[in-house]
Amino acid sequence: MPREPLPAPADPGPYRALVRPPKAHCIEVIDQRALPHSLVKVTIADAEAAALAIRRMWIRGAPLIGAIGAYGLALALDRDASDAALARAHGALDTTRPTAINLRWALDRVRAKVTPLPVAVRAEAAWAEADAIAAEDVGICYAIGEHGLALLRGIAQRRPGPIAVMTHCNAGALATCGWGTALAPLFRAHAEGLALHVWVSETRPRMQGASLTAWELDQRGIPHTLFTDGASGLLMQRGDVDVVFVGADRVARNGDVCNKIGTYDKALAARDNNVPFYVALPSPTIDWKLATGAAIPIETRDRDEVLTVAGRDDYGQNVRVGIAPHGTKAVNYAFDVTPARLVSGLVTERGVTRASAEWLAAMFPEQAAAA
Amino acid sequence: MPREPLPAPADPGPYRALVRPPKAHCIEVIDQRALPHSLVKVTIADAEAAALAIRRMWIRGAPLIGAIGAYGLALALDRDASDAALARAHGALDTTRPTAINLRWALDRVRAKVTPLPVAVRAEAAWAEADAIAAEDVGICYAIGEHGLALLRGIAQRRPGPIAVMTHCNAGALATCGWGTALAPLFRAHAEGLALHVWVSETRPRMQGASLTAWELDQRGIPHTLFTDGASGLLMQRGDVDVVFVGADRVARNGDVCNKIGTYDKALAARDNNVPFYVALPSPTIDWKLATGAAIPIETRDRDEVLTVAGRDDYGQNVRVGIAPHGTKAVNYAFDVTPARLVSGLVTERGVTRASAEWLAAMFPEQAAAA
Repeated sequence: MPREPLPAPADPGPYRALVRPPKAHCIEVIDQRALPHSLVKVTIADAEAAALAIRRMWIRGAPLIGAIGAYGLALALDRDASDAALARAHGALDTTRPTAINLRWALDRVRAKVTPLPVAVRAEAAWAEADAIAAEDVGICYAIGEHGLALLRGIAQRRPGPIAVMTHCNAGALATCGWGTALAPLFRAHAEGLALHVWVSETRPRMQGASLTAWELDQRGIPHTLFTDGASGLLMQRGDVDVVFVGADRVARNGDVCNKIGTYDKALAARDNNVPFYVALPSPTIDWKLATGAAIPIETRDRDEVLTVAGRDDYGQNVRVGIAPHGTKAVNYAFDVTPARLVSGLVTERGVTRASAEWLAAMFPEQAAAA
Repeated sequence: MPREPLPAPADPGPYRALVRPPKAHCIEVIDQRALPHSLVKVTIADAEAAALAIRRMWIRGAPLIGAIGAYGLALALDRDASDAALARAHGALDTTRPTAINLRWALDRVRAKVTPLPVAVRAEAAWAEADAIAAEDVGICYAIGEHGLALLRGIAQRRPGPIAVMTHCNAGALATCGWGTALAPLFRAHAEGLALHVWVSETRPRMQGASLTAWELDQRGIPHTLFTDGASGLLMQRGDVDVVFVGADRVARNGDVCNKIGTYDKALAARDNNVPFYVALPSPTIDWKLATGAAIPIETRDRDEVLTVAGRDDYGQNVRVGIAPHGTKAVNYAFDVTPARLVSGLVTERGVTRASAEWLAAMFPEQAAAA
């Protein structure tokens, strides 16, 4: 289902997670594995590379995964636009990562667009639809920023000094086609001159907070402080946090939020300390088919991500170091589910709503009805 | 105040965090910074080395810090047992680390023992008192193991299969003079043939779970799985955890528990999922002078512990890698405070008690009255 067009000024940030050069049949992405130490750009020119980029997490973030999936399907159709090839490419891209629903949503949307068309024009239609998805994502994220900004203005009016915002993982421009989700309100607030201080959780095992969010905030000149995941409770207990903003990888119909592992722990700490806990999400992140978060598939990743840490040594080399005894078993669930009861509000492109089936359906009636 | 003597079989573990060779005027400790990759033993033969070992965390763990502080004072008195030297050495050792109350308790106990004595016999008396503190610690930990074992037996009786225990940081034999605190019940249960599975949180920033607890469990053949700190909520939500056992660095009169950063987050997750949350502590960890945990001094450590991770590279070299952009600010609180309301029970050498002023004082009436 197409979204309404939203007016979207260009994200002023000095980097783009995804660029399609005008009319080119390829896309350029940042290889996010090299951040924060190096800014490496990669050109993706076939569907296999798009699938690899998603699976190996050169790129990540639910909205960005969706857009790159859409371009991946367009790349596949460039080579072979038959029904069989379309089904194969859809399947190959869809199985790269299981949790973020945006991927399936974007692939389905491109497939629905091209299926009724003659084979000869399918590829161009797929590129156009992928472009539309990417452009809409910028508009959606900008609107999320607008609605989140209103929340931040409200906090700023209640007391002097910088607003202390905690975030988790990376829900910035690097996770989207521009502006970001949870970070979009902060980028807007900073541009408006609202004083901010951002608490960045490092987000083990892959350290997306330390390597991506800290980098984005640094690039944009927004003051921030890194902390280890286990310190979120203490920081809130000390009164050092005004509000929490996180993103989402999939949201159930009732407002349960699946997001990066550690989100649920932060929501519990926020509730125990009366800190508002907001989840920013574009509506394609909502899985209208799931009544609750219990059925969301939680991706399990390689245990080596837990048993080792990647970083840069004193000689400027990227290395991976082991932190546990040889042969240690480890578990690596990439996401958790925060119950809707712990969520103060869902910040969507249409506004802020309660995390409940009734309120979500009231904000997106046509989507809720279509599911 | 002397503790009652407790019968204490020797800890059967194949390592000792602290050994005083018979009649020697030195102690041998494991340099815990080298674990799990190397087992390095260090001889401490003067008070300055004892202070350095505590401050630089060659050794850590509230009960072990206390015992090594006591031996440090004995080493100082070997050189000069005057009142002035005693005061200087007490002060120098007391300021090495601020949070664990056991250090102050042990130093005060040795000072109280030797102060009334002639200068000529003070050093020998200090060595004897340090030996007594170390021996009592083994007895106390053994008793904690006994009482915690009863809790585990209760769980085992209620359902088949291994008991799934979550722990945080390291509260094992490496944190004590033998047996450990939170891990003592597990060591006892394993020896009895109770099937266990231990969930080990890695415990950023210093990774004491990955490097010390995983190593201890491996040494003793107890099945265990490592997880990142942010995954504790999900593991409990999945029903994968029967009970949580953690240690403590200082407990207030009302049962508020100061322990390694991240403990509070785990207590919140336990409460939200009806998982019993027990804190194991020797009574010297209780600060009877503090009404609540709010006044416990929380140690702040170097931000480099957060900005980097130490581990072993593919060539077997110990290296430290940076994980964040150059110049990133970071905060590094070493401990947090878990409110008594979240604690299911305190496991002490005298038994399991509720975390409340009334119940704690009822279990240790002479200590509560003396404070």
